[in-house]
Order: sequence, then structure tokens, then C-alpha cells
Amino acid sequence: MAEGIIPVILSGGAGTRLWPLSRAARPKQFLSFGPAENGLSLSPFQQTILRCRGLPFDPRPIVVGANDHRFLLVQHLEKIAVQADILLEPYPRNTCAAIAAGCLQAMTRHKHALVAIVTADHNIPDHAAFRAAISDAVPDALNGHLVTFGIRPDKPAPDYGYILPGKRLHRALSVEQFIEKPSPEMAEQLIAGNWLWNSGNFLFRADVFLDELAQLEPKLLEAVTAAHDKSTQDLGFLRLDAQSFAAAPALQIDHAVMERTQRAAVLPVTYSWSDIGSWDSLHTMIEADQAGNAAIGDTVLVNASGNLIHAPDRLTALIGVDDMIVVSTRDCLIVTPKSRAGEIKDLVARLQADGRTEAVQAPQTFRPWGDYEVVDHGQGYQVKRTVVAPGGVLSLQSHRHRAEHWVVVSGEAEVTIGDEMHRLVAGQSAYVPQGTVHRLANRISQPLVLIEVQTGSYLGEDDIVRLEDIYNRASPASKSRPQ
Amino acid sequence: MAEGIIPVILSGGAGTRLWPLSRAARPKQFLSFGPAENGLSLSPFQQTILRCRGLPFDPRPIVVGANDHRFLLVQHLEKIAVQADILLEPYPRNTCAAIAAGCLQAMTRHKHALVAIVTADHNIPDHAAFRAAISDAVPDALNGHLVTFGIRPDKPAPDYGYILPGKRLHRALSVEQFIEKPSPEMAEQLIAGNWLWNSGNFLFRADVFLDELAQLEPKLLEAVTAAHDKSTQDLGFLRLDAQSFAAAPALQIDHAVMERTQRAAVLPVTYSWSDIGSWDSLHTMIEADQAGNAAIGDTVLVNASGNLIHAPDRLTALIGVDDMIVVSTRDCLIVTPKSRAGEIKDLVARLQADGRTEAVQAPQTFRPWGDYEVVDHGQGYQVKRTVVAPGGVLSLQSHRHRAEHWVVVSGEAEVTIGDEMHRLVAGQSAYVPQGTVHRLANRISQPLVLIEVQTGSYLGEDDIVRLEDIYNRASPASKSRPQ
Repeated sequence: MAEGIIPVILSGGAGTRLWPLSRAARPKQFLSFGPAENGLSLSPFQQTILRCRGLPFDPRPIVVGANDHRFLLVQHLEKIAVQADILLEPYPRNTCAAIAAGCLQAMTRHKHALVAIVTADHNIPDHAAFRAAISDAVPDALNGHLVTFGIRPDKPAPDYGYILPGKRLHRALSVEQFIEKPSPEMAEQLIAGNWLWNSGNFLFRADVFLDELAQLEPKLLEAVTAAHDKSTQDLGFLRLDAQSFAAAPALQIDHAVMERTQRAAVLPVTYSWSDIGSWDSLHTMIEADQAGNAAIGDTVLVNASGNLIHAPDRLTALIGVDDMIVVSTRDCLIVTPKSRAGEIKDLVARLQADGRTEAVQAPQTFRPWGDYEVVDHGQGYQVKRTVVAPGGVLSLQSHRHRAEHWVVVSGEAEVTIGDEMHRLVAGQSAYVPQGTVHRLANRISQPLVLIEVQTGSYLGEDDIVRLEDIYNRASPASKSRPQ
Repeated sequence: MAEGIIPVILSGGAGTRLWPLSRAARPKQFLSFGPAENGLSLSPFQQTILRCRGLPFDPRPIVVGANDHRFLLVQHLEKIAVQADILLEPYPRNTCAAIAAGCLQAMTRHKHALVAIVTADHNIPDHAAFRAAISDAVPDALNGHLVTFGIRPDKPAPDYGYILPGKRLHRALSVEQFIEKPSPEMAEQLIAGNWLWNSGNFLFRADVFLDELAQLEPKLLEAVTAAHDKSTQDLGFLRLDAQSFAAAPALQIDHAVMERTQRAAVLPVTYSWSDIGSWDSLHTMIEADQAGNAAIGDTVLVNASGNLIHAPDRLTALIGVDDMIVVSTRDCLIVTPKSRAGEIKDLVARLQADGRTEAVQAPQTFRPWGDYEVVDHGQGYQVKRTVVAPGGVLSLQSHRHRAEHWVVVSGEAEVTIGDEMHRLVAGQSAYVPQGTVHRLANRISQPLVLIEVQTGSYLGEDDIVRLEDIYNRASPASKSRPQ
């Protein structure tokens, strides 16, 4: 335990159940559920990272996440000033491959590394209780058990995995039986019995887990080992080798290992836990009024009870509405009874099949240098609010079909247009003629906010010629990739 | 009938039942219920004006409207290229005073003028049938009857007035009895009987109506006569004298005259009619799908029936929702069962009492020269999309606390800043420093669209010093009135 307990944060999920708040481009671990996304309200990813601070020796966490979310990962880590090893999955391959990769990385630090496998999109408000449970599980983990954390169910949830605990080990209990996603009737029976929910977080020795994997899923271990061996460093990310990783079967850890190993153990815990797996479960995380309405945003409720409202951007009024989910974003609105929240994922699948960008893309688009949002658009023009993070540098680029006016409204911009460079502060502006090479950067420690008015016959994101890019996005073969 | 039948369009209403689409600053007669407010979809006010075109001799209509809506009246008339006498009410004084003013104005054209009193916020899709009914009522109106138009009820509407027709006159029937706003139980009985809805439109001789008023409400007639006698011409408007008009009691025509006169008559009509008095009645005006959903906007409906959705600005999804009203604007959202739509007016009253601007002001603000909408705002800045109508000229003005960047995105701007004047086309921009006198005008026949980025410590609409204004809004006493 010279390295302490190394947190391996699983951040590869791309949940669709919290649509339209979550999108494939910004899944729920990166959302803020507070009243304003002003940086004060932490994302589940950030809360997960912070929950793992203070484990013995506080080692640098290992984050396993999707390539598409790499800049989100960096931004969310930077906001809480935590450094991590970031392993990028070139493709989603479910939890087992991600955990194997995390274990391999942990073993580069110590051959008997103890790893806490922690899902980035769950909510456990009592961080101290979580860390105490991890510590309680240490002796059993050191003894070679794969310890999961079992939650006492408070409702028959058919979407969860259930564990029947057996005899006492050290602090944990052996596992008698697993049941995954029972029927609603069976779930009723399970919660009447002694069963626990499988909360998806684990403590074990990395070497023990990989040994089990060598027995149970050798092909998976082989593929992930190759992907890790051939991984490359890129801008601080560790990129798993794509070709090798592609060969790993997409398996869930419970199916691949926990349900089949003789080493499974469960530590019953009493802390409050939610997988934030649906709007309904989010409801329990937000403080409700006396009538059971949980609201984020400016709401007026008349004879309304049991509603979940997430509409931070506008005045929302409900009259005579009960047990409904009302979620509003700049581009989407959904209204559905809480009892039907499970159908949202089918809706999103349908929207994706129809090629609707709203299924994937949020109004706010994240880039390595910051983000932008289209605030108005019409015939021949588009208006964006662009935020460049401190140190952010957009690529040296030009556009074939559009001109741009930039007005700085906050912070300071370093603007290069053609051969000239200027520094602009709030109230100053710049003009980028069509075809002119330009670059925008933020060299100070405050965020830069500018309003960008684009005019031209074609305003698509693919009208970009990248000449240089500090984020390695410029190449002869990818001149028309989005910025 | 040398002047034909003069339409007197009553446009003074400020309905709150269609909130958040309708606001005090833009009541329902000025809304478009089409998919996009692109000028193709006509407002009830415009439809009312057009419905009256083609009456015998097609005289210039008389519009009686609120002073606060004067520029909306002009813009809506201009879009359909109709000229009218516009009488402005300095205060709302209900229908009887407005009708009296319209009759006095009609009598300036002919002492026996026949007037069709038409409410601007009703929907009668069959314009020809409406005009035919007016023509049918002419003989009885010439004979000195005050003819109202009776609709065969198709539901027990407790909010309406009911008329029991009596003996045949020429084409119309005498009126046996009026019942206003019956109880729901009584409404059931009335529609089982021979009763008709009082549709709020009338045909009569102006002199006959004023004679009746002299008998029944002499104080009201005296006040309105004085207000009309002392009225002043201002930019093409006829402003009723405020002090005189204030003395007129606020009475509804039915209470003040129709229920008390011996001259009341009713012409039963068969055309489809709606007072657009609620979201529920609007529902019947919009084409519904097979499940009875009437939707304006981009909607995805799963197991949803009987809903009314008005959300033109974004993707709206309903899952498992029935008989609900869902209305979304840029700044507000309401969700309520259709059965409770009547409570919206109470909600708006509550919002008004709380001083909420959303109760009164729409996101789009109308000015004599066009309109603007705030599309983004944040600390120290605000972005507006400003549309200047052809011929529109903003006041010569300056701002103490803010600077402005203007980017033309469509049309052509005549920009005066300090001593310089420029013409800017799409893609060109101008900068107005804090404190600098400036003016914006549109001298061509296409609308001018510009994006205005305001920066400064204070961005309130009252930071304006008006030096000249073609709409008579500049005066030493009103230097800080909104633009």
C-alpha cells in the first residue's frame, strides 16, 4: 500500500436518460445540477474526484474516459485544481475493459496497487462515509477479494443489480448470488429479502483483478494489455492504442467477472447513493418544497405537486400539474410523467436515428480552448458567445465563406489578423475579413468572453482551414474538421 | 349609405389568457399563431381588417386602440397595406366608450353612417360568410335596430353572453332576453334551449347608437363626445383628449346598452366563430393530428393526445401526456391541463402583482421604427437583434453609460455618429463610443437587421438622451423615456 488506494475513475459513460440536459457530447458526469452553471455547482465527475481525495496517501487519480470528452475532462479537473492520469478510450468498450486499463496503469506505479474503482456519474453526497467504507474494505481487498459496496434498497428498482450477501469475511461478506435487472415482481421480492444493490464501485488489488480476468476473459485482457502497452502520450493524455483496444469485447464488469469469480465480496454500506440514472433519481438529489416539487430555475407553481422541473433559463409556470418531469434547455423541451421517464432513452434513440443534432449536441459546444454557444442566427448571419479559458488558444485559421466581427465583452483577447496582432479589452472589437488568416488567444488568468457576429453565405462549422493548432487538430488530412 | 358600411375595429383589449404568448405590451390581436412569425402568418387584428374589406363601398376602417399599442397598430396595418383612421384611447375604458368614439368619428363622414362594430381579437375564418351576415343585417340596422350576431353554441361556455331570440324583424330577430356569464349548470340549460351566443360584433346606425347612449348613459356620451371634440392629430393618429376621456365610465356595451335598449336585434349566423379567449379555444383554430394534438413548432409526440403545444423556438417532446397545454417562449414556459386554462389569467395577475416584467413585456419589444430582442446578456454586456422597418428612423440620441457596436447582417443602415454619416451593408459595422450622439435609419425598402453589442456598467433602457425624434418622443420633460 505504498501508493495508498489509487482511485480509478470510470468516466466513459454517455447516458441518454437525462436528455435533453445530457447529450452524447456532454453526458451526465459533466453536467451541473445547480441553479446556474457558474462553476460553483460541481459536476458529478468533479464530486467523484473530490470524494476520492483524502483516501490514504491521496494518490493521483487515474481517469478512464472517452476520447470525445478529453477536453471536458481537462476543464473539469482544472476547475477543481486536481491533476490526474487521463487514459483515453478510442471506442466505448464498457466497464470491464476500462477497469482493466485502469488496473494496468495503476500497476505501473506499484505491482500490488490497491485500486478503488469509482463511477464518475453517481451521487454519494456523504464523501466521508464513502471514504470510511473504502477503508473498511481494505483488509478484505488485501486478502484477495474483489469487494463491491452494497446499498440497502429503498424501492424495487428493476434496472439495478442485486446481491445476496453470505458469510462474514473480515468486514465484508461473501456473495451468495447475483441477480441482474430482475422483473418488477422479482425486484419486490428481493427488497423484501436481505438483498443489496450493487452500487458499481469496487475496491480490489489490481493484480488480483487482472488474474481473474486472465482466467475468465483472456481475450479482453490481452486486447487491453496491448492497447496499454502501445499507448501514446499526447498533450498530457495517455491514448490507448485504437487497433488493440478495438479487439476488446464490450463487457460489463459484473457479467464478465463479479458474477463468475470465487473472490467476490460485498461490504454493506449505509450512505445515500444514486446512480443519477434517470430524471426520477435526480429528483431525490434536489431539495423539494412542501408539495414535493424539486425545481431548478425560476418557477411559479400553482396546485402542483411532486414535479421535477429543470428550466434554469426561463420563468416556468405549472398550474394543476402533478408528478411530471419538465426539462427545458435553449434548444429542447420535454414534458413527461415521472412514471414514464424510462422512455426518454427510447426517444433519444429515435431522434438519433432521425439524425437530429439535438440528440447528440448541446447548445454549448466544448473545445479544448473553451466553449461557444450560438445565441442568435438568421439568414446570412450567426451570433456566438465564445468563452476562451485562461491560456486558451484557438487554431491559426481562415474561413472561405464568412467574415467575423468580434466584440470583447469581458477579459482580454490577443487577436492576430493577417500580420497584425492586437490586445483588446471589454468594449473593443476586431474584424476578420473572409479568407484572412487569424488567431484568437487568452493570455491572462481571467476568462475571455466575446461576441462573434459571423456574416456570409455559408456559416457551417466545417468552413475552417487550420494552419496551426496547439491541440494537434491541424493536419493536411483534417483541414475541414470542426474547430 | 353613401359611405357604405364603415368598419369600427375595437382593438383596445389587453387579454392575459394567452400568456405567455400574449402580454400587456402585445395582446392577442397582434400575435401570429402560425409556425413562424415571418409576416406570412396574419394576426387576428390583420385578419379582422381584411375580413371587413369588401363590405359595400369598402370604406376606410376606423380603428380604436390603446395608446400603448399605437406603433403595433401602424405596423400591422402597413404589412397588409391598409390605411385607417386610428383613434387612440389614452386609458382603457371598455367597449362602450370605444364604440361611442368610433361612432362619433364615423359621423364626421356621414350623419347617418352605418357602422360595423368588429372586435379585433376574434377568429372568423370564413370572411365571405361574415360579410354576407353584415349585408343581411343592413335592412334591420337601417330601420333603427342595434343588430348583434348570434352564434349557435356548441358547448356550455360560462364565460359568454347568451341571447334568447324573439320575433322576426326583417332578417334579424328581436331579443327576448340577455344572460351574461351564466353558471355552468345554467349554461347547460341555455344551450339545450334556443339561446345564442352574443358574438360581440354589431351593425347599427351610428346616430341611433348615440341616441340610445344619450338616454341610457348620458355621462359616458358626454365624456366621449368631449374627448373626440378635443382630440388632436399626432403623426397620423387621432388622440382622444385624455382628461375628457378619463371621465367616461368603463362599461361594456352589453351592460350599458344592449341589455337595456328596446332596439336590440339578433341575426343568427352559422359561420365558425371563436373569441380566442383561452388556449383551449385557440386549440380549435390549429389543425390537429389524428390523436388530437395541435402543435406549432417542431414536436415529437409519443403516446400523447389532445395536447396544445405552442413552442416555435425549439424541439419539444411529450411522452405519455394528454390534454395538456404546453407553451414556450424565449423567456417563459407554461404547462397546465386544458381543463385549467382558465386559471392562467389569475397566474398573470399574480405575476403582475409581484412586479414581474414577464407578465407585461414580451421578449420582442416594439418601437415606432421596428423592434428589438435581447438575444444574450451577461455581466457588463447585452446583445440585441434590432430590426428597423423601411423608413424607420431611431431618435438622435446618446447614452451616458454604454458603448455600442453595430454589425449589419441584412439590409442597409444609414448610421450617423458624431458628425459623420455612413451607409453600411451586411458584414459592415460601426462603433458608437459612450456619450457620442448617434442615429440609425433605414432609407431603403428592405428591412434592416443589425446585431448590437452593448458594453458598459449600466445597460438599462432608460440610459438614453433623446435630442430629436420623428415620432415625437423627444422632449425636455421626457429625456429618459424608453426609446
